Amino acid sequence: MQVDLNADLGESFGFYTLGDDVGLMATITSANIACGFHAGDPSVLRRTVRLAKVHGVAIGAHPSFPDLAGFGRREMHLPHGEVEDSVLYQIASVGGVAAAEGLRLQHVKPHGALYNMAARDRQLSGAIVRAITAYDRTLTLFAPPDSELAAAAHECGLAVALEGFVDRGYDRTGHLVSRQSPGALLCDGRAAIEQALRLVKDGTVVSVDGTIVEMRIDTLCLHGDLPGAAARSAAVRSALEAAGIDVRPIGRSQLG
Amino acid sequence: MQVDLNADLGESFGFYTLGDDVGLMATITSANIACGFHAGDPSVLRRTVRLAKVHGVAIGAHPSFPDLAGFGRREMHLPHGEVEDSVLYQIASVGGVAAAEGLRLQHVKPHGALYNMAARDRQLSGAIVRAITAYDRTLTLFAPPDSELAAAAHECGLAVALEGFVDRGYDRTGHLVSRQSPGALLCDGRAAIEQALRLVKDGTVVSVDGTIVEMRIDTLCLHGDLPGAAARSAAVRSALEAAGIDVRPIGRSQLG
Amino acid sequence: MQVDLNADLGESFGFYTLGDDVGLMATITSANIACGFHAGDPSVLRRTVRLAKVHGVAIGAHPSFPDLAGFGRREMHLPHGEVEDSVLYQIASVGGVAAAEGLRLQHVKPHGALYNMAARDRQLSGAIVRAITAYDRTLTLFAPPDSELAAAAHECGLAVALEGFVDRGYDRTGHLVSRQSPGALLCDGRAAIEQALRLVKDGTVVSVDGTIVEMRIDTLCLHGDLPGAAARSAAVRSALEAAGIDVRPIGRSQLG
Amino acid sequence: MQVDLNADLGESFGFYTLGDDVGLMATITSANIACGFHAGDPSVLRRTVRLAKVHGVAIGAHPSFPDLAGFGRREMHLPHGEVEDSVLYQIASVGGVAAAEGLRLQHVKPHGALYNMAARDRQLSGAIVRAITAYDRTLTLFAPPDSELAAAAHECGLAVALEGFVDRGYDRTGHLVSRQSPGALLCDGRAAIEQALRLVKDGTVVSVDGTIVEMRIDTLCLHGDLPGAAARSAAVRSALEAAGIDVRPIGRSQLG
Repeated sequence: MQVDLNADLGESFGFYTLGDDVGLMATITSANIACGFHAGDPSVLRRTVRLAKVHGVAIGAHPSFPDLAGFGRREMHLPHGEVEDSVLYQIASVGGVAAAEGLRLQHVKPHGALYNMAARDRQLSGAIVRAITAYDRTLTLFAPPDSELAAAAHECGLAVALEGFVDRGYDRTGHLVSRQSPGALLCDGRAAIEQALRLVKDGTVVSVDGTIVEMRIDTLCLHGDLPGAAARSAAVRSALEAAGIDVRPIGRSQLG
Repeated sequence: MQVDLNADLGESFGFYTLGDDVGLMATITSANIACGFHAGDPSVLRRTVRLAKVHGVAIGAHPSFPDLAGFGRREMHLPHGEVEDSVLYQIASVGGVAAAEGLRLQHVKPHGALYNMAARDRQLSGAIVRAITAYDRTLTLFAPPDSELAAAAHECGLAVALEGFVDRGYDRTGHLVSRQSPGALLCDGRAAIEQALRLVKDGTVVSVDGTIVEMRIDTLCLHGDLPGAAARSAAVRSALEAAGIDVRPIGRSQLG
Repeated sequence: MQVDLNADLGESFGFYTLGDDVGLMATITSANIACGFHAGDPSVLRRTVRLAKVHGVAIGAHPSFPDLAGFGRREMHLPHGEVEDSVLYQIASVGGVAAAEGLRLQHVKPHGALYNMAARDRQLSGAIVRAITAYDRTLTLFAPPDSELAAAAHECGLAVALEGFVDRGYDRTGHLVSRQSPGALLCDGRAAIEQALRLVKDGTVVSVDGTIVEMRIDTLCLHGDLPGAAARSAAVRSALEAAGIDVRPIGRSQLG
Repeated sequence: MQVDLNADLGESFGFYTLGDDVGLMATITSANIACGFHAGDPSVLRRTVRLAKVHGVAIGAHPSFPDLAGFGRREMHLPHGEVEDSVLYQIASVGGVAAAEGLRLQHVKPHGALYNMAARDRQLSGAIVRAITAYDRTLTLFAPPDSELAAAAHECGLAVALEGFVDRGYDRTGHLVSRQSPGALLCDGRAAIEQALRLVKDGTVVSVDGTIVEMRIDTLCLHGDLPGAAARSAAVRSALEAAGIDVRPIGRSQLG
């Protein structure tokens, strides 16, 4: 049994610092790096790529709607052609900085509202998938299980890593509970570890109303903006490894 | 005898249109494409790359200070490390979009205030050169003759194409007259053609005070934001060709 | 019989010029001035306020979602508190610049997607109305007839000027046809004049499918971004005046 | 004897939090509130104005170069007309939000590089002074002693409050030591208190090389971005009051 452990990094901006990138990078296997559209800037991006290199963490682009003021969490309705071009631009910026440091991208994970909207919208997902395949057909897309985003990738022959969240609550249909609703965040570290183990070992998750839902995943996401994120990430990783699970990067696709 | 003919393109932004890209692209051999920092956006960038492909025009990144409000023409004082990271990010975005369209970058030309400041400042130039070589050592840098920017490139083994301006006035030291001064712009098409021919055939330019100044150049720049830019560019190209000069892209460096 | 004639102005940005503000300002009675969020910048704003002063045109703030890249035409989902604060900030900026030139604001007209979404959404409209009344209870809100925006204003005792469009098509329910649909724009000058006269004299509009729809309006909007906008605006005004209609600003509210 | 105690507040942005506004607001008498150009956003601005109201703290606008990425600390060279319009826009936004909360502005303090450049440049200072007087002639300008900024204000009859820094080092000419040089920041709380007392009681400051320099000031600035800023501010205020100094807002000018 194996699993990838990912987190969103490189989300500082200029004078503003966000998240414990140094702490988290030591415990994860894949980093989703902000591209400057919801967070990050060219110097933060490069520093984060270098930090990933030091720790042997695989890197991915984390493109977003252009919304620094809203941290990419606000739904926006853009023409699909603009989404495609914008995602391509963002992947290119991270991919080029990575190349300058001698690294290749492993994956792409849409951020925030773009991820959530794409999960439900095949057309929007198609734009994202076209951007990725235009850049590099061997990249892996991180997407929620049973989502339009995953379906759009399959349709185009793009490799998908199904993603489960360690510290977010699910409803009985296997979808994330909205951040505004009770149970959205698992603040208790023990509960997060349990959810991680269950997702990997059993292929299930317990929903906020107690239902056991089937959910097969390839990569686990931890949120870096919760207090104590690095310690929690380390604890999750230790628990996974103690359970005999191999925690390692998802790897580049062999499909392309 | 041969020369490259370049212009700044892809400078529209969102709802705002600037320049006659379609007209200009048909007459030049190298396009400097805006990266979104002084102008351009992801969709404009991609459209411009595709247009260059159709016309067989070689493409370059045209990085700038981050200054959309000032079109990159305002001097800014950034730490050199930030300049390096910013230029790398911008080259990466154009390079990645080009790759998605099956093209490779030929060159990099800094824009506006960044170009002018770098021409006088070796340290700033060093930051730009480091960004370029980190991305791809075989790119060519467009730089003014007798400039710190050209010197910094030579020092690092980066190929340089020396650039002369068809429609800008020079002073007796061989430097551009400030845009605020008389004679800064050659609005007369005949004068522009004469300056182009003289630069290529004689390796000289006539300064605003009538002095003949030696100036060896490899590429000629035309400004796309002057009225009738496409017609002027076509006229300059015809005149060069009629004089037996081979007008063609500078090409990628063999040095890298 | 009387009517106000309004247009969106001050939508240039930095190096980018948009619209014929000088031509339009000579023919309208109320100007909706961009606040820098979808278009405009501090210098464009001040220049536009001064131009309105010269022509005796009443001025209003034209707040938008923060979306320069999309010209404020893309739907965005912001928390209502953020919309309220953002609209207040934008009104304050135009109001303060106007005061520095010895003028007072007459009105507020939300822009683009904010206007269209508010027309259908009472909660969003409430946020806009709260921002206006917090700034100045005697301002007039420009809103579509039979809209949630007009209703929200009435509920709070804020004066409303109902707005009809001279150059946009309506459906049989009295709502604007989407910009993507056929008949969205009345490009024929004669048709625009006819629609203007009918709206003011008869209180009706002919929908794109030929139905006569009742529509009482107080102010007519002309789009400045169509070709020949200033000439069209002059023609509409002449036709209105020739029909004995008094074309003048809506005026500040006496309600406050 | 009396003195005003000021700090920069409202510098959070969107998802990014900066500074301990709640802690600082309880200990100061004047707040310099960011306008959204180097920091702050419409919601942060309004929240900060409301917080000042609760604590009876006088408010001022804190305009900057448009440089969110550089926190307004990077020198930029803008045409003076653009600086004037930009500063007017920023004052208007804070002034209008304050008015919506029933407050009037007390002062204006330029931020970062704008403040430092204006201190040495009469022309740039003139642009700032023109913006302030266009908005409200009774505002007070915060400026360094013996500066071009103070001189420009005097010339136009604009009231000035001379400002000393509690936690920054001075050179023997009475100017601030650059942030990059040793002694730039007084990290020791005791030293800051001593500098505050000496500035108010003796009208002098001890420079980084030990020289006693005459310096008459009206308002003391504390930096909110240093660790423990609120506690330090409270300690400075206590020490001032224990020394019989009346700590209160500078007040609006009677000159206008």
